[in-house]
Amino acid sequence: MKKHLISSFILLLAFSCFASAQEPISPITVPQGLNSGKVELGKKLFFDPRLSKSGWISCNSCHNLMLSGTDNLVSSIGHQWAQGPINSPTVFNAVYSIAQFWDGRARDLDEQAGGPIANPGEMASSHELAVSVLQTIPGYIDEFAKVFGGEPITIDMVTDSIAEFERTLVTPNSRFDQWLAGDEDAMTEFEQDGYRLFKLTGCAGCHNGPAAGGQAYQKMGSFNRFETNNPAIGRQAVTGLRSDRMRFKVPTLRNVELTYPYFHDGSVKTLEEAVDTMAWVQLNRTFSRTGNEKVVAFLKTLSGDLPRIVLPILPPSGPDTPAPQPFQ
Amino acid sequence: MKKHLISSFILLLAFSCFASAQEPISPITVPQGLNSGKVELGKKLFFDPRLSKSGWISCNSCHNLMLSGTDNLVSSIGHQWAQGPINSPTVFNAVYSIAQFWDGRARDLDEQAGGPIANPGEMASSHELAVSVLQTIPGYIDEFAKVFGGEPITIDMVTDSIAEFERTLVTPNSRFDQWLAGDEDAMTEFEQDGYRLFKLTGCAGCHNGPAAGGQAYQKMGSFNRFETNNPAIGRQAVTGLRSDRMRFKVPTLRNVELTYPYFHDGSVKTLEEAVDTMAWVQLNRTFSRTGNEKVVAFLKTLSGDLPRIVLPILPPSGPDTPAPQPFQ
Repeated sequence: MKKHLISSFILLLAFSCFASAQEPISPITVPQGLNSGKVELGKKLFFDPRLSKSGWISCNSCHNLMLSGTDNLVSSIGHQWAQGPINSPTVFNAVYSIAQFWDGRARDLDEQAGGPIANPGEMASSHELAVSVLQTIPGYIDEFAKVFGGEPITIDMVTDSIAEFERTLVTPNSRFDQWLAGDEDAMTEFEQDGYRLFKLTGCAGCHNGPAAGGQAYQKMGSFNRFETNNPAIGRQAVTGLRSDRMRFKVPTLRNVELTYPYFHDGSVKTLEEAVDTMAWVQLNRTFSRTGNEKVVAFLKTLSGDLPRIVLPILPPSGPDTPAPQPFQ
Repeated sequence: MKKHLISSFILLLAFSCFASAQEPISPITVPQGLNSGKVELGKKLFFDPRLSKSGWISCNSCHNLMLSGTDNLVSSIGHQWAQGPINSPTVFNAVYSIAQFWDGRARDLDEQAGGPIANPGEMASSHELAVSVLQTIPGYIDEFAKVFGGEPITIDMVTDSIAEFERTLVTPNSRFDQWLAGDEDAMTEFEQDGYRLFKLTGCAGCHNGPAAGGQAYQKMGSFNRFETNNPAIGRQAVTGLRSDRMRFKVPTLRNVELTYPYFHDGSVKTLEEAVDTMAWVQLNRTFSRTGNEKVVAFLKTLSGDLPRIVLPILPPSGPDTPAPQPFQ
């Protein structure tokens, strides 16, 4: 009898491990081995509006770490109030994506960070101007020297530092992750039902991995047409391939409760509507009211601990620092 | 002999006390007895861009606590990139001012906080809209109830909370304050010379009190004309009195090293030039090169400890929260 119990226990353990290994969404883990000096420098740069031509827009303007790592706007506001072409993705857990931007045109966080700085409709600076600003700010000169060993500041050092900071922007310890780790009480039955539905109906086919997304490109409107006024054509803009038309990077569902409005065009305000729309256009399915509620309840368990960030004190400009040009 | 020594000591002590009591600038003290719940709520509101029509501009946009409590721009940027009419004053140590805004049109921090929210060229919301946003955000409903006892949210609660947070934004422990407290080594001889010059030439006649300013209105150009393209007429806009033309609130000199560019029109980029201009237009004096350097050196000792602020996590909007309207 005792032997039988032990066998059962081993079987159960094996099954649990197997089940856990088979879950399409894996837990968020806190990054290890980062360069702390680079993280601190990157944090300053992330918040520093002097990387923009106006001296007023920083990375945090559109990827607001006090909200959801995004601006919660349909599309972002850029230099001289330019209307952005697409909904700003969250920077939280962006490190888990196969590439950056909705169309994946930047291969990693480093490459992404350089984009908005030089985009005329975003921060409207140039890599040259951004560097010339930083290399005239005494506090930055010292800090770059400490981190990079005294070589002249380059845009690669800037984006490298911002990316290192962004690697810290992960949100572990969601109730879903607690449940994954074995705490059965971390999710209600209703929420677990939602997760089962999420897997059964095929959502998890794309929304998987630690970020519950970010792992692949998919056509927006695989089964049924997604109606939008947004002119973005998705990955075709990068590859030139007609077959990539309307293929976008699958967004993360981590903290999705906070990252409204939804989709690349920011057209949908509520999670309830987003779930129904996705079911229809991507999976040719219609959720019952209760089914929708269950999936939404599950999605809310993906909200993790947002990083606790002490506001950096930015070093003052020097006498030779180029003045911001907000109105030119 | 011993008696004589004791008398001398008492005399010296009395003289020190007298001297200290006579210093025109008094130390910054950390505020006591604030309502901590209100401070925390006010901090969230200070950083929350949803108090603006666009959902993108917060108090911190122009009074950036990572810089110098200001935006370091000539004049600020408002809704739809409106160009502000005047240089944004720092929020650090603003609690010490007799009134708020350059022309003193708000009697205190509470009254000031309501201004930009409803100013079409700043946050472009209205008090009604701001309240209707907050009262549909579940996290805020709870927090206001905790702080104010469950009455419906009002704009006065909003500005009261922001003001309470702003009362924490003081910058104690500058080298000057350490010197005032008796640490002779906290300032160099050169800096102390600068302070003596500052007093002798009359700067301290206006720049006094704990904030080294903020205590009075003075005509910009008391002796010699201050040339500017800025159309602001100063306190006359509030009182209607011709005699108040070009009278502005004396700005604080605390952290003045950080609060460039200078004057109500933001026309002067460096502290060196600002000191020379003030000497000429306000005091009809010309500093020698060394005199200027000494005064500037003294002014830099007024930089205190900027507050250490943990970024608040802002509560997410609810389904009925009015959507931001950045482009209308």
